Amino acid sequence: MPTVLAAAVEHAGVLLALFIIIAAAKVMAELFERLRQPAVVGEILAGVIIGPSVLGLVQPTELISIVAEIGVIFLLFTVGLETKPQDILRVGKKAALVATLGVVFPFVAGYLIALFWGGTFIESMFIGAALVATSVGITARVLGSMGLLDLETSRVILGAAVIDDILGLIILSVVSGLADGAVNFANLAKTAGLAILFTVVVGLFGARIMTALAPRISDLHVNKPFFNIGLMCCFGLSVVSLYFGVAAIIGAFLAGMALAEATEGNQKMRVLTSGVTEFLVPFFLVHIGMQLNLSVFNDSSVVVLALVITAAAVVTKFVGGGLGAWGMKRREMAQIGVGMIPRGEVGIVVAQIGLGMAVISEQFFASVLFMAVATTLIAPPLIKIFYSEDRDLDGVEDVIIDTDISEDFTRLG
Amino acid sequence: MPTVLAAAVEHAGVLLALFIIIAAAKVMAELFERLRQPAVVGEILAGVIIGPSVLGLVQPTELISIVAEIGVIFLLFTVGLETKPQDILRVGKKAALVATLGVVFPFVAGYLIALFWGGTFIESMFIGAALVATSVGITARVLGSMGLLDLETSRVILGAAVIDDILGLIILSVVSGLADGAVNFANLAKTAGLAILFTVVVGLFGARIMTALAPRISDLHVNKPFFNIGLMCCFGLSVVSLYFGVAAIIGAFLAGMALAEATEGNQKMRVLTSGVTEFLVPFFLVHIGMQLNLSVFNDSSVVVLALVITAAAVVTKFVGGGLGAWGMKRREMAQIGVGMIPRGEVGIVVAQIGLGMAVISEQFFASVLFMAVATTLIAPPLIKIFYSEDRDLDGVEDVIIDTDISEDFTRLG
Repeated sequence: MPTVLAAAVEHAGVLLALFIIIAAAKVMAELFERLRQPAVVGEILAGVIIGPSVLGLVQPTELISIVAEIGVIFLLFTVGLETKPQDILRVGKKAALVATLGVVFPFVAGYLIALFWGGTFIESMFIGAALVATSVGITARVLGSMGLLDLETSRVILGAAVIDDILGLIILSVVSGLADGAVNFANLAKTAGLAILFTVVVGLFGARIMTALAPRISDLHVNKPFFNIGLMCCFGLSVVSLYFGVAAIIGAFLAGMALAEATEGNQKMRVLTSGVTEFLVPFFLVHIGMQLNLSVFNDSSVVVLALVITAAAVVTKFVGGGLGAWGMKRREMAQIGVGMIPRGEVGIVVAQIGLGMAVISEQFFASVLFMAVATTLIAPPLIKIFYSEDRDLDGVEDVIIDTDISEDFTRLG
Repeated sequence: MPTVLAAAVEHAGVLLALFIIIAAAKVMAELFERLRQPAVVGEILAGVIIGPSVLGLVQPTELISIVAEIGVIFLLFTVGLETKPQDILRVGKKAALVATLGVVFPFVAGYLIALFWGGTFIESMFIGAALVATSVGITARVLGSMGLLDLETSRVILGAAVIDDILGLIILSVVSGLADGAVNFANLAKTAGLAILFTVVVGLFGARIMTALAPRISDLHVNKPFFNIGLMCCFGLSVVSLYFGVAAIIGAFLAGMALAEATEGNQKMRVLTSGVTEFLVPFFLVHIGMQLNLSVFNDSSVVVLALVITAAAVVTKFVGGGLGAWGMKRREMAQIGVGMIPRGEVGIVVAQIGLGMAVISEQFFASVLFMAVATTLIAPPLIKIFYSEDRDLDGVEDVIIDTDISEDFTRLG
């Protein structure tokens, strides 16, 4: 037992939990790398194993979910740093179509499956809504690891994820309005309008402002000025985006994009930022795995429902997202389709809201939870396979930050 | 207001608090740099300003205290990375004397002042104990910023801080034993023995083990192997150290030292680690400031007591620590003396334990709290002054990680 003093000051239990998460994630990542499987899958499975489903070593607390959230915020910020606004604008139309079809197909499928399974109208609408949102963090992580964020298909996926988030917001507003008794179209228009306004304004003007300010930032007296300004922009826009109804990760992505040009060639800022990302991302991945509740499998009808919903979630996003990229090469369409598959947290939260409003049943909730985790596990190997021809690296996972730095500097660390 | 969805997933309030802390810390750091004052003082004052004492924008929550703790853990880990075990061993005797005198003088002074002020025997023992522990984080930060961690006096301060922590543990055990009615000397010997054993064993063998393992670490398949192993060692030894009764930051420092040789010249690992440190340290500094309770000043007798205790804390550590370095140059003795002044969190916790056991009064508690924050504010300018002749840099704060990297890479970021 730690002494009174030590335990009182230093949150021994919390530090132990953090250590277990880091160690489990890294060991599983190493194992999966050796098996030539995506490290992210290993890290999510680490969460399943240490979480309540299997060993019960670590419980998914509020604290861990916050650290996980900060982790995915940094991940998207780092991705934004590699993405200039014009890269996204150039693929804007394609991304919009990918997002739209990638939302419509899963929504309809989820709605129909739930209705067929005996769900009410509202319940089915909620299940449809829960199938909509793409969790771009997983895809960004895998593509970043493969050094493929600068491909056109990667840009389309990123752009579509931004639009997807706004469409998801609109759908959730409609669905929860329906559950409340009525949809207030004036409010809905306002909600959607604000979200779009925020995204477009920051996307269009953020980079210009930061590039104009760059010389002044260089002149700051404080050390590591761009890293510090980056932290402030990242957290600032994450918070502001929430107030505009947009996900925090979208704000972080926009913050990164705003700084992409101003910090181009500033390797130190990128390595410093990627240190934070690399430290925090395992918490994001492990936390996803910890939310899986394997006890759903005790009821075989739920197993079937969970598998059906998961299959529908995978197929409809793949087909919808892929068809949205019509006109590109077949392989590129497939790449975009698989890139949109992971659902992650947002689907879970939609289902939680439904559960909180007492309009969806426990079995639907359990199935959505399973689908959210399962799609994040299924997608990475598919992404690896579909992108294998584009991969110019040597099998060594590395990222984002490696342009211009010598191989030795890159590989170690 | 954020939408239901956004607020539910993303802890809008927490992200806002984190943003305010980062922004306030960075703005104040910049301001203090322009005034040629230590940035750390600006960051601690940022905590006073945004905390409950002044603006009340952010409350010192459990979460923030945990992030602060992780921040100082990384800070000491980073410092450990720059410190080889033999650097500390070489100054071991001197450090032991500095630590011992730096513990005896403040303890006696605190005891006598409290007794004179009408405190009971136990109360006075607690106040003495609360004045003992040096918070090495602040000094490490300032010396690191000045690029002076490799001076002999810096090593003495670091070594003394490790020994000081163990002496503080013994004193607290004795004092709380007395408050409980009896001191169990067998338990006490066991507590002290375990703490010493842990520190000596890890200090002596950690580096050898890690250096021997280094080639295998290089061969890991996972990316950034040394950074990942570093994270695991840092958190692992922090946790284990708590179970041996030693502070988590001492464990982190030992982890850093264990890796110092194995990662020598691995700049990427150091920059990645320092990214995490730079992100988290502001929380450590701001959190100190947030704990200051300016309402003590409503009672003028407490003001006097707080000032007397603070003055005693500063003078006795300076004299005790300085005398312990007898035989070094006068200037070096003074450098070591000022380096030991900051008290920080540990003193607060000792006082909290006394308060929890109902053996110290509110006015003593408030005074100790004030002393803890005040010493961390007073020390950095003194350190800067006493070390000004050793400083070979240009007034630009930078750190730890800068050996071998080009000036441009260093300064930006």
